[in-house]
Parts: sequence; structure tokens; C-alpha cells
Amino acid sequence: MNANPASAMEEASIQQLISHFKNVRTLTETLCEPLVTEDYVIAPTAHIGSPIRWHLAHTSWFFETIILVHHVKGYQEFHPQYNFFFNSYYVQLGEKQDRTQRAFVSRPTVAEIYEYRKYVTEHMLQLMDNLDEAQWAELESIITIGIHHEQQHQELMITDIKHIFWNNPLRPVYKSRDIEVSSEIPSLDWHRIEAGNYWIGHEGDGFAYDNESGRHQQYVGDFELSNRLVTNGEFLQFIEDRGYEKATYWLDAGWDTIQEQGWNKPYYWEKRDDGWWQMTMAGMQPVNPAEPVSHISYFEADAYARWAGVRLPTEAEWEVASTQVPMEGNFVESSLLEPTMSKTSGLSQMFGDVWEWTQSHYSPYPGYAAPAGALGEYNGKFMCGSFVLRGGSCATSVTHIRPTYRNFFAPHVRWQYSGIRLARSL
Amino acid sequence: MNANPASAMEEASIQQLISHFKNVRTLTETLCEPLVTEDYVIAPTAHIGSPIRWHLAHTSWFFETIILVHHVKGYQEFHPQYNFFFNSYYVQLGEKQDRTQRAFVSRPTVAEIYEYRKYVTEHMLQLMDNLDEAQWAELESIITIGIHHEQQHQELMITDIKHIFWNNPLRPVYKSRDIEVSSEIPSLDWHRIEAGNYWIGHEGDGFAYDNESGRHQQYVGDFELSNRLVTNGEFLQFIEDRGYEKATYWLDAGWDTIQEQGWNKPYYWEKRDDGWWQMTMAGMQPVNPAEPVSHISYFEADAYARWAGVRLPTEAEWEVASTQVPMEGNFVESSLLEPTMSKTSGLSQMFGDVWEWTQSHYSPYPGYAAPAGALGEYNGKFMCGSFVLRGGSCATSVTHIRPTYRNFFAPHVRWQYSGIRLARSL
Amino acid sequence: MNANPASAMEEASIQQLISHFKNVRTLTETLCEPLVTEDYVIAPTAHIGSPIRWHLAHTSWFFETIILVHHVKGYQEFHPQYNFFFNSYYVQLGEKQDRTQRAFVSRPTVAEIYEYRKYVTEHMLQLMDNLDEAQWAELESIITIGIHHEQQHQELMITDIKHIFWNNPLRPVYKSRDIEVSSEIPSLDWHRIEAGNYWIGHEGDGFAYDNESGRHQQYVGDFELSNRLVTNGEFLQFIEDRGYEKATYWLDAGWDTIQEQGWNKPYYWEKRDDGWWQMTMAGMQPVNPAEPVSHISYFEADAYARWAGVRLPTEAEWEVASTQVPMEGNFVESSLLEPTMSKTSGLSQMFGDVWEWTQSHYSPYPGYAAPAGALGEYNGKFMCGSFVLRGGSCATSVTHIRPTYRNFFAPHVRWQYSGIRLARSL
Amino acid sequence: MNANPASAMEEASIQQLISHFKNVRTLTETLCEPLVTEDYVIAPTAHIGSPIRWHLAHTSWFFETIILVHHVKGYQEFHPQYNFFFNSYYVQLGEKQDRTQRAFVSRPTVAEIYEYRKYVTEHMLQLMDNLDEAQWAELESIITIGIHHEQQHQELMITDIKHIFWNNPLRPVYKSRDIEVSSEIPSLDWHRIEAGNYWIGHEGDGFAYDNESGRHQQYVGDFELSNRLVTNGEFLQFIEDRGYEKATYWLDAGWDTIQEQGWNKPYYWEKRDDGWWQMTMAGMQPVNPAEPVSHISYFEADAYARWAGVRLPTEAEWEVASTQVPMEGNFVESSLLEPTMSKTSGLSQMFGDVWEWTQSHYSPYPGYAAPAGALGEYNGKFMCGSFVLRGGSCATSVTHIRPTYRNFFAPHVRWQYSGIRLARSL
Repeated sequence: MNANPASAMEEASIQQLISHFKNVRTLTETLCEPLVTEDYVIAPTAHIGSPIRWHLAHTSWFFETIILVHHVKGYQEFHPQYNFFFNSYYVQLGEKQDRTQRAFVSRPTVAEIYEYRKYVTEHMLQLMDNLDEAQWAELESIITIGIHHEQQHQELMITDIKHIFWNNPLRPVYKSRDIEVSSEIPSLDWHRIEAGNYWIGHEGDGFAYDNESGRHQQYVGDFELSNRLVTNGEFLQFIEDRGYEKATYWLDAGWDTIQEQGWNKPYYWEKRDDGWWQMTMAGMQPVNPAEPVSHISYFEADAYARWAGVRLPTEAEWEVASTQVPMEGNFVESSLLEPTMSKTSGLSQMFGDVWEWTQSHYSPYPGYAAPAGALGEYNGKFMCGSFVLRGGSCATSVTHIRPTYRNFFAPHVRWQYSGIRLARSL
Repeated sequence: MNANPASAMEEASIQQLISHFKNVRTLTETLCEPLVTEDYVIAPTAHIGSPIRWHLAHTSWFFETIILVHHVKGYQEFHPQYNFFFNSYYVQLGEKQDRTQRAFVSRPTVAEIYEYRKYVTEHMLQLMDNLDEAQWAELESIITIGIHHEQQHQELMITDIKHIFWNNPLRPVYKSRDIEVSSEIPSLDWHRIEAGNYWIGHEGDGFAYDNESGRHQQYVGDFELSNRLVTNGEFLQFIEDRGYEKATYWLDAGWDTIQEQGWNKPYYWEKRDDGWWQMTMAGMQPVNPAEPVSHISYFEADAYARWAGVRLPTEAEWEVASTQVPMEGNFVESSLLEPTMSKTSGLSQMFGDVWEWTQSHYSPYPGYAAPAGALGEYNGKFMCGSFVLRGGSCATSVTHIRPTYRNFFAPHVRWQYSGIRLARSL
Repeated sequence: MNANPASAMEEASIQQLISHFKNVRTLTETLCEPLVTEDYVIAPTAHIGSPIRWHLAHTSWFFETIILVHHVKGYQEFHPQYNFFFNSYYVQLGEKQDRTQRAFVSRPTVAEIYEYRKYVTEHMLQLMDNLDEAQWAELESIITIGIHHEQQHQELMITDIKHIFWNNPLRPVYKSRDIEVSSEIPSLDWHRIEAGNYWIGHEGDGFAYDNESGRHQQYVGDFELSNRLVTNGEFLQFIEDRGYEKATYWLDAGWDTIQEQGWNKPYYWEKRDDGWWQMTMAGMQPVNPAEPVSHISYFEADAYARWAGVRLPTEAEWEVASTQVPMEGNFVESSLLEPTMSKTSGLSQMFGDVWEWTQSHYSPYPGYAAPAGALGEYNGKFMCGSFVLRGGSCATSVTHIRPTYRNFFAPHVRWQYSGIRLARSL
Repeated sequence: MNANPASAMEEASIQQLISHFKNVRTLTETLCEPLVTEDYVIAPTAHIGSPIRWHLAHTSWFFETIILVHHVKGYQEFHPQYNFFFNSYYVQLGEKQDRTQRAFVSRPTVAEIYEYRKYVTEHMLQLMDNLDEAQWAELESIITIGIHHEQQHQELMITDIKHIFWNNPLRPVYKSRDIEVSSEIPSLDWHRIEAGNYWIGHEGDGFAYDNESGRHQQYVGDFELSNRLVTNGEFLQFIEDRGYEKATYWLDAGWDTIQEQGWNKPYYWEKRDDGWWQMTMAGMQPVNPAEPVSHISYFEADAYARWAGVRLPTEAEWEVASTQVPMEGNFVESSLLEPTMSKTSGLSQMFGDVWEWTQSHYSPYPGYAAPAGALGEYNGKFMCGSFVLRGGSCATSVTHIRPTYRNFFAPHVRWQYSGIRLARSL
């Protein structure tokens, strides 16, 4: 019996959280339905991503380690060694397996990991069902982080699976898809925003990560954003104009990278006798010139913009513009798992489809301070050398994204759904 | 109908070959019985060994590519891409997947690979059941190579599984085993051989690899071999005498290796509060001082011998001595899968238990010429920088080994059952 | 004879430029006076810096390739292969030697390179002596860039020499120095700046690099800067508090770096029985607790600030504050070549002594566009992954620095005179 | 005054030793005469060879450390840190600088190193001038090793200089040379040797390295050696027959190496519009088809032999054959420093011109034991993975070579004068 039961309003919030929790836990497993056991075990490559079995376990470990062991009396860890196996990068949470070793363990088995998930889910539900007022105050935000954490891993799972299937010469199909016939899309146009001091960063009661704070004023000059994403067809012009061969379009580090890696096309593209094809979640398909180009590194996005005579937006510019449109788009809920054509006039595709590279390095906002404890390691310690992406992708949940959401990756990363929005100053 | 049916004597030989073929194909699968699907998929490490699913397929690929596609009219390959996946190192047999990629493919699945095995086995049996005289003459030796090739991979599978299980902090048990209580073993003694010109290399009708030819005379001076293998207890003295810390015992490349790798004990040993333990096929077990030391690199074997004031045998010395004892020992057929104590007086343990490092680099015998065609790549192209091991191990089949058998590995390799036989000149 | 001779005012400017040019060219050579031939030839390490002979030639190559070959009729290059040897990173200026090869060429000799310098200097002087109005308009800024370019290399030469001498166990002395006895320095205090929209970036006629444009408004919140640089004594407290051992103070990439590299002290420090010593241009000397800590990476500066409960300034904050103090300090002109104690109250040491790491990634200012042609490669293509440093150091010339000057290095770099200024928000 | 003065016969030997010592010390410096200071300082590459200044010092260090400090009472080391700088690989002789650092120290200067040489030479002469009988017995062999050690480094100096000059796009000339006009050379023929038990290894009083012992019987079958070395013209046929592109000619490790390194011609060859040129000590010169091919790795020599349908000799075969011809040839004394055409019929070019790769791995002879102490590290610890070369080259002194002399290098090494002698079994 709880000393101080939750109020009715709280009770409604709790039920909403429980519902969100259940939905997210379920979706993770739904996403795995097309997989066979072998697909769970391997890593995408030696350097990118993690085995699916690891994601399944790690997202449960997060709830177990951050919440259950601290907030459930007498809670028994599912297995004493799982903390070692499934801690990702939290140095405050004990010894962990080296990341590169994830691909070299076959056990715990997939079935055991599903047992682990079930065990954690049940204990979490039990905990949430019995929260008193004080616990609710303490745990609401942490549980919410756990849910959003799992949503981030859903995206990684999708992109890891895509990579695993691409890396296999058999090129398996995750989910077949009717090829959309190329049709009219809006021509490239510019959406203007006036200069001024804008407030940037998260505000209000809703959930946001720590890196979206502190909210602060920022002066932004007059600028324009392109009305839609850069398409495959447009990017093909860059290729055909030998954009990958002219150093002047590239950052120094980008030029070094494309030389070393031999890059001369988007990650999943492949030239065949009958034209360009690309790996999709539906297997190999012809490149549709009207769809947004995807799996583009920052280096390539930046070079493309320079070739086009414009530039990438700053994250502030993107955020200011994004508040002018509804938060709708092609998210994981559409089940397409690939970006699609722009279908509306005006500023479109700001949310969903592909993450949009900004020219902003990932740095702390004014007044930012990482939280105390292990969750302080979630975001802050990565503020070095990465670039910010905005808007979510076709692998993101609509319940996960916000205008202020700051995703970030190193500039050479290509295995995410990442594409190009253009900007120019006036 | 065959133009020229096989004679009765040939028929007996064919039946024997079929029986050998069946036994070996079955044993490969029997060895996998303790595994779950996940165990088949991962590689031991990024650098050593191959996934078990790959071994299962590769040993079938060998029969399909070397024999079935050439000698069965209208033979349909099981899958057009399997040659790419399961060719190991035969440059004459078409494009192949990079070795390091074996750990990053999840398909074909384990079930599909078992189908592949079944398909190949059936076609091989059909072929063998209908051989005429001419085909028999042409195919007997190639089929025999295919059988021995699979036996070599059985050894690799056992040592790869051992490595996979060791590399996993859960340290799974492949097959439980009653710990043998340490008891009396023969004290170290010396077995003398007279100087003279000896014939070295394979002779006669039985099967042998090309690298055991040409048979040739070799002058060998007076020498002595130790009557048994070096034990864990003896090797422990080397450790306790700080053998890993004194450069003068080591080859220059060996010293560099142990510095870089931080080696200071045999591969699978682990020091605990209650003494030394080691990984075995039965999981972690206390080190038994009476059993042969195993999983020793050439560098360590050589350093141990120098510390002991003696040396390793040459392969000629080993071969001369080995002909004086019966070809008996602790082989895979004993199902122990670990080396055991010497139980007999006189020259013992020459066969089975652990491969014995010789001081001989792996070079061609006089008159050696690699066969024409892809099988010429089986042995000859590796005659550079490796050292010869002799006598087979507890993972070797008694039907696979011979006194003239030349195994070889690079001097830093430790994941095989490899140990130490001592020698000295007089 | 010139069609349109320079006006009197231009003539004065030209004479000033000539004088600046001469002084800078002379200083480069003066800095080399303590060297023997051998010191010119080697590189500091395989990864950092360049041989001194290369700096001497490259700074001449810049004038030759950017100016003389284009603007002097019939100009004869000193040597046809020097463009290959001495082009640093300008892809538009032809094939160049790989950077790592600079340490592996012994010729052209040092004497030949001095000849080259003389040849280029004389042709530059001849050119400048005869500029007409149109040429002056065209060349003034380019010549000025060449001069500042050489000044940048003077700094690199000093820090490369320091590294070369440190890397040699003989620890040679570049120039002996009387050890300054530690005395009173101002206690750490905070200098407050009011929030507001500030103009950031270069303005006016004076020389500035392209990366200091475009000048733009930026909103800066209330903040405070520490009145002086962090001292050796203060940094020692961080070490003694085991700052290098606690992951929570460090960026993730910083923590990885200090683990891999084994960093646990500033670059040139060395612990001896009688306390801490450090390499200086005067050889090994005891660490003076009152002097600014130097040769600190961004990772260390950032970790120190977090340990101290504050943060590093942004580059905008630094620039706003710097305009409140005179541009005076311990520059290369003082010939100390090491940072010294703060001697004044109030905001001190903003210029000279050590470059001050800011928390700002090196990104383009709003409206920034790299110039056309080879000079466009000077700055813009490096705007990825580095951090901005401000204020110059004891190796910088007072004629080279400005409040708006943006230096930048990767976050692990330590061979420059780089130190710590603290900031905090209010 | 000596207790027991040397006898007259000893005195003659001593004088001979002194003379040999003086000549060798002088030659080392003579070889450096064409160099400028800068040439002494750099290393050939990051991976091969050492700076010339290091060779000059190391050969003096050897005498100082092995002899002077132990055998001259009150001997004062020239500098306390030189042991650290100039010890190559003797772990028993104290801490030493990492090999890769040799290229990154500019001091001690070249002049100081010449002072060091002079100091050591004078003390050695003083010591030798006053040897009594007992000292002579003890020191003769060690001094002789020191002399031969310096001769080995003379060879390395020549090949390091050649590499340094080749690596520099200016391609300096060490010593100009009249190009020999191509003329008749003997056609390739075979020299037959009868099978039998031969004695192999060093015998008698003359100097030999430890690795030439123990002398032992070896049975050698009937074989033939090619009468002369393989020429550039013959090797060119291998290239034109696409020998570098056909895996079947190559060892597995060799094939990997040429793929990784992009090898498709001998090390110093360069294709120009007017045909093949090669770097020589006289700068770039056209490849003379009649001269022996040189700067060939074991991998290439072995592949060439396989392409030619024959093989490389074993070292025993080579040694047996070499005793049938006089020890004459194109040595360093001829001052050509490049191999030349065969001018005699019968078995020719066995000594000098180029080192001849044998198919023998470098292993200990029967009964070989490394000497006690530091000199035991001279040869024995390298008996792993290298191949034996025989006969000396144009950079070897005639006073340094013997029929039993065993040189050895890793199979990928190409910067030595190394070429091809063919063999075949009968």
C-alpha cells in the first residue's frame, strides 16, 4: 500500500506513460519479426552499429540498471553478467564489454534475451502500476527517458538491419514494397525567414533531452530554406558534374575521406548496366529521381551545397523555420522505412523522411549542464567533432521527434537516413 | 550404364571410400550437436578462425566445386552465389568473399546450409555409387582429398568452438567431463636415435598430401627425444622462473609478440585466487599439472626449450622417431577433446594429445612440385614463414594422421592444440 | 616606367608594407640562428609539425607561387621541383609531396633553401619597389597575407623546434633564460560582462583573415571571465585530485584519447625526484607554479574547467571581453618564448603568453564565403572538428594578432602554447 | 708493461688485425665523402634502414660497449647517453632508443659523431697496440666481429643512401658512372652437381659468424645451377608475360604483398616514355638488359623461378656449388656499387654483384648454439621467418664474404642488392 497515492490527474499521466511504454516495447519486437535467429547475432560491420540481439538486451538493461535495481525493493537482476554485456558507454555503471566484442558473443541466446525483455517489461509494469506520488515525481522523467532511449535504438535497429542486409551479397528483403512510380514533385524553391533574435531550445513541460536546454536567445540573419529535400535526381547531377572529383567542393577532412574510402556515390547506390540501383528495406530497387537522396554523410551534404552555390542551414535557422510547419511527415508509423517524394507545396518534408544535416557543430547551448549521475553521460560527453541533424527520418517515431530535437553524428557517418536541406543568406 | 564397370577389387575400395565419406560427413554434424543456432554464426575473433556455419558449407563447397560440377553431367549448383561465399583461398576458383567478412553475413541460414550439405552428400553418394573404372582412377584421390579436407576442418571447428566459448564471459560448456585426478606420470627421460641417412616423406599407396613428397634422403645426426610431452606442471616452472620476462629465451619476433600482446601464460590459462584454471571443452577447470601443456605458440615452445637447456626437434628427427612407435593415441575418436596424461613408459604421446612444434620452417621437400590446377593451391603457396607441427592432436581423427603428416602454422598461433616435445643433440 | 604611379599616400603604405615584409623575413632567419644544420632537417615526429628547412622554403614558395609567377613578367622559378616540395595543402596549385615524406628528404639542402629565400625576397622587393596604382590595388592584400602566413609559420617553427629538442633525450637548450623566481600573482577573480547583442568579427580596413568575416550580430548572455590564465600550480591541483583518472570530467573522445595515449600531465612536464620539471626553450626547468599552464589540449582544458565547476568561454564571449583591454602582452618580441606570470590586476593576459582554448567549434561565420582561387583553401576547408583558440601566445608577433583573430586546432593537439581561460554564466 | 708479451707470430696477427681495423674504419668514412650534412640525418623511410649518422655512431658504439668499457681500465665513455642512442637491438646492453625514433633526433651532430668515431678508433688502436698474450686470446675474435660488424653496416649505408637518394624526387647522384654499353653475355646454361653427402658450414680458423656453425653433413640430390644471374632483360619478359598479375606464380604471402603494395616491377625501376629506367648510385639510368636484375624480394625471385619452370637453390646447394669457383667478383672494392654483366663462361657471378636468394628459411644448423652474452643476440634470435641469401653483392667487401656466409632478410625486403640464381633438380 502506498503512503501517498497518486492523484487522479497523476493517475491519468501514469496510464498514458504505461501505454507509451507498452507500445514502444512492443514495436521493438514487431520490428524484429522479419528476422531469423542468425540476423540477430552479427554486427553490421566491425565499425558500425551493433547486433540486433544486443539492441534488444541493451534497451532492457537501461530500464533494469537505471530504474529497477534502484527503485524496486529486493529486485533480483535477471542475470549477474548482463550489466557487463549490455552497458553501452556509461562509465559510471561498471565494467562493460568492449564494443568491438559485441559481434563475437553468441550467448545469451536470442531466446534468452527475449526472456530478459519480458522479465524487465513485467517488472517495469508492476512498478508503474504501484507508483505513489513521491515515486511518480521521481521516476516519471527517468522512465520517459528510458522509453525515448528505446525509440532511438529502434531507429538504430532499422538502419543496422538495412546495413546487414546490404552487406550480404544475397541482399535479402526485409519487407517488400510496391515501387512508387516517379511523378511530379514541387520544383526547388526558397522559403524566406526574417532576421531577428529568436528563442532556441526546448521550452515547457513536454519531454526533451538535456542537450535541448538551456533555452536561449540567438540572433539569426535573413535567410531562406529550400522548400523540400534534395532529390536523388538532383544529387545525380552533382555526380555527373564530377562533384566527387573536384577538391574545391570539399572540406579538407571530407576530401581525405573520399580519397581513402573511394566514395563516389551515396552509400547504398550501385551502378548497373541499366542505371542506378539502391539498397532499400525492400531489397535492391532502381533509384527514383524524385525521392530524397539518403544515406549521405555531412561531407557529401556540405560538398553538394557548395557545388549548388548555396550552403547547409544552421541548426538555429532550421529550428526557427520548423516551427512554421506542422510536425507531420513520413515516420516509422508509415511503415515505409524509406524516404518518399515531397507531395505538398510550401516548406515540406521538414519532419520525417531523412535527418537533415545542419552546418552546426554539436556544442552545448548556453547554460547547458549535464545532469548528475549516469544519465549525465547520455549526451554531453559527445559534444566534440559531430554535426547536428534535425527533423527525424522514416525510421523515427512521431512520438519521439520535436522541432528542438538535436541528433548528431560524426561527419563521415552514412548508415543513417540522412539527407540534404539547402539554405542561403540574403 | 557404365562402359567399363569397376572390378571387384575396385568395388571394395569404392565401398570403403563411401563408408569413409559417410562417416566423416556424419562426424562433422555430430560435432555440432551441442551448439545452438547463434553459435554457428559468429567468428572466434576478427583474426582467427571462421564461423561454424562457414565450415559446414565450405567442406561441402569443396566437393561441389572440385568434383560435382566437373564430373556429374548436368549437375545443378545448389545456389549460384555459394561459390562466392564458401571458397576459402583458391584464386583459380573465382571471386570469393573477403575472409574478414565471414563474420558479417547471417545468410544463408544454418538450416539452409544443412540443406546444402545434404544436397552435396546425396550427389556425392550417387556419383560414387556409379563410378566406372576410368572415373574411379580419376576421382579416387580427389574424393579422398575432399574427405581429408573435411577432417582438417573438423579440427578447426573444434578449436574455433573452444575459442568462441572461451571468448564469451559466460564460458559455456561444450561437453561436460569428469576431471581426471592427477596421478603418477613417467618422469622426463630421453629416447636415443642413431645418426644416419634416413628416408623422409611419404611412400606407398596410402593417401598423403602433396607436401609430404618428394620422399628424399636426409642425414640426421645422433639425437634424443623426450619420452613424453612437456606438462602443465613443467611449464608452470618456466613461468615461475619468470621465463616470460627474460628476453634471452626468446626469438626476436617472439619477444616483440609477447611484449605487444602482453602474453605471460598459455592462451587459455587464467589465474584465480585458488590457483591456475584453464578453459576446456568442459568449461573452466583447474590446470592439471600432469597433463600436457597445450595452446602454446611456437615462440613459447622455443623459449621453453631454450630455458630448459635443450631444443625442439627438427621435423626429420620427429619423423624418424615416430616410426618406432605405433600410431596410437588420444584422438578425436576418444571424445575427450583435451590432451591427457602420458600413461606408458618409453617414447609416448607421439600421436594425438597435442600437435608438436618442430624447429623446422615449413619448406618444400626436394623435388616437391605443387599439382596443376586449384588443388595446387592446397599447400604449396603457404611455404613461407610457418613452422611444421607433427603427430596430430585430441581433435584429429586417427584416420587422418600419419608419421609423415606435415601440419603448419605461423609461430604466433595459439588457438590449436599445440604443445612441446623436447630434443637434444649428442 | 609605370603608367600610373602610386600616389603619395599609397607610397607611404607601400613603404610600410616593404618594411613589414623585410622585418618578418628577417625574423624567420633570426629565429634559426641557434640551430645547427641537422636541426633543420628532421621533423618533430611522424605526425606533428614539419622540418624547419621546409618552413623556410614553404614561406618563400608562398610568395613565389601566389605572387611572383603571376605578377612578375618573365619571372623564372628558382627551381622547377620546388612547387612539388613546398606546396603544403593547396590542391589547386599542383601536385605536392605527401606531408609524411617531408622528414625523408635531405635535399634541397639548407644552404640551397637560404639561397631560395634570398632569391624570392629580392624579387619581392623589386616588385614592391615598382608597383603602380593598379598593381598596388591588386597585390596589397595578397602580399599582406603572405607576410601573415610567414608569421604563422614562425610560430610553428618555434613550437616545432621546442618539440624537436624535447624529443631528443639530450634536451638541448635553444636559448638560455634566467629562471624567474615565483612571486605574488593576482588571485583568481571574475570579470563580468553584460548580456546583449554584440557585433562579432572583423571590421574596418586593417588586415584580417577571411575566417574573421562576415561580421555579424550575436546575442551573448551575462557571463564572467577569469581575470587571468590558469596557472601550473592550479593545474597541479587537478592532477593531484586525480583529474586524469575520473571519466566524468572528460569528453568521451577526450577520455579515449588519454586512455590510449596514457596522458596524465601536460605535454612537456616530467616528474623527477625533486618535483615537476618541464621542457622549455631554455631546456629542462622546474615547473613554476605561478606561470600559466601551457601545452594543454582542448580535452584537458575542458576537463579542467569541468573539474573547477565552471567552463571555457565561447569565442564570442572572449572577443567581447578582449575589446575592453589593450592588445598588449608577452609576445615573440619579448624573446622569452615561454609564458610568464600575470602581473596586473583586472582582466589580464588576454593577449600573448598562451593561446586560449574556447568551447567553440571552428565553424564559418554567417555570410562567410571562402575567396575564389587557391587562397580560398587557406581557412575554409578546415572548418570541421577543430576548436577555436584566441589571443596569441609568446610565439606570436604583436603585429600578427587581433581581438578577432581565430586560431584553430584539433582537440588533441598539445604542441602549441595553448592554455586555459575560465568562464561562467550568471 | 705486459706480463706476457705476445709472441712474434701473434704480433704479426695483431698487426694484420690492426691494419684490417684501420682500413675498415677508413672505408666507412670514405663512403660518406659524397654526402652533405643533411644526408646523414634522415632515415630512408619510416620502416627501412637508419640514418647514416646512426650507422657511423653505432659501429663505434659496438667497439666501445663490447670491448673498450670491459677491457680498458678506467675507460671513460665518450658520452653517457650514447649507449641509449646507438644500441641497436641488444636487450642485454641496456635501454635503447626505439628504432623508429632514429629519424627524429638531430643531435649528437654529425661533427660530434665523427669526434666519437675518432675517440673510439684511437682507444681501440691503443688497446690493440698493447695486447698481451692473454688479452689477444680473449679479444681477437671479438675485435674481428666488430670489424665485420662495421663491414655489414657499410653495406647497409650504401643501400640506405641509395634509398634516400631514390626517395628524393631530385634523384641526386652519389657518384657518376660511365654507362656500360650492353654487349654479349653468356647465354643461360646449367651447371651440374652430383648427389651426395656434403659437409656444410664453416670450418677452420678463419673468421665466421656463429650462424655458419655447426658444420654438418647434409645429403644433397643431383641438381643444376644456372651459370649466371638472371638479367634485367630476362626479368622484363616475366613482367611482359604479366607475371605480376598471375596468382599461381606467387606464394600466398607474396601475392598479398604485391596486391597491398601495388608492386609490378623491381623496386627501383621506373617506366618512362622511352622505356625502363632505374635508380642507381649514379642517378637515374636506362635499364641495361644484360645486367643482373637487382633489388628483388624473395617473393619476386620465387615467382620468377616458378614462371621459368625451375626453382631457387637451397642454401646447401648454393654452398656446394660455390666451392667450385674462386671467391672473386664485383665487390665494394670495385667502386661500381651496381651489379654488372657476366663476362665469363661457366659458373659465374657466384660472388659479388647481388646477394642470391635461396629457397631456404633461415634456421639454425644442427648443433648451433648462440654464444653466451650480448653477442649471442647477433644472429640466433632472428632465425624465424627470413630466407637465406648467399654470395655477397657489389656493396660487400671481398674481405667480408665466404662461401659459408649466411645473410638473411624477410621475404618482402627489396632495398638490398638482391637478385636471382636459378636451380633445378634432375
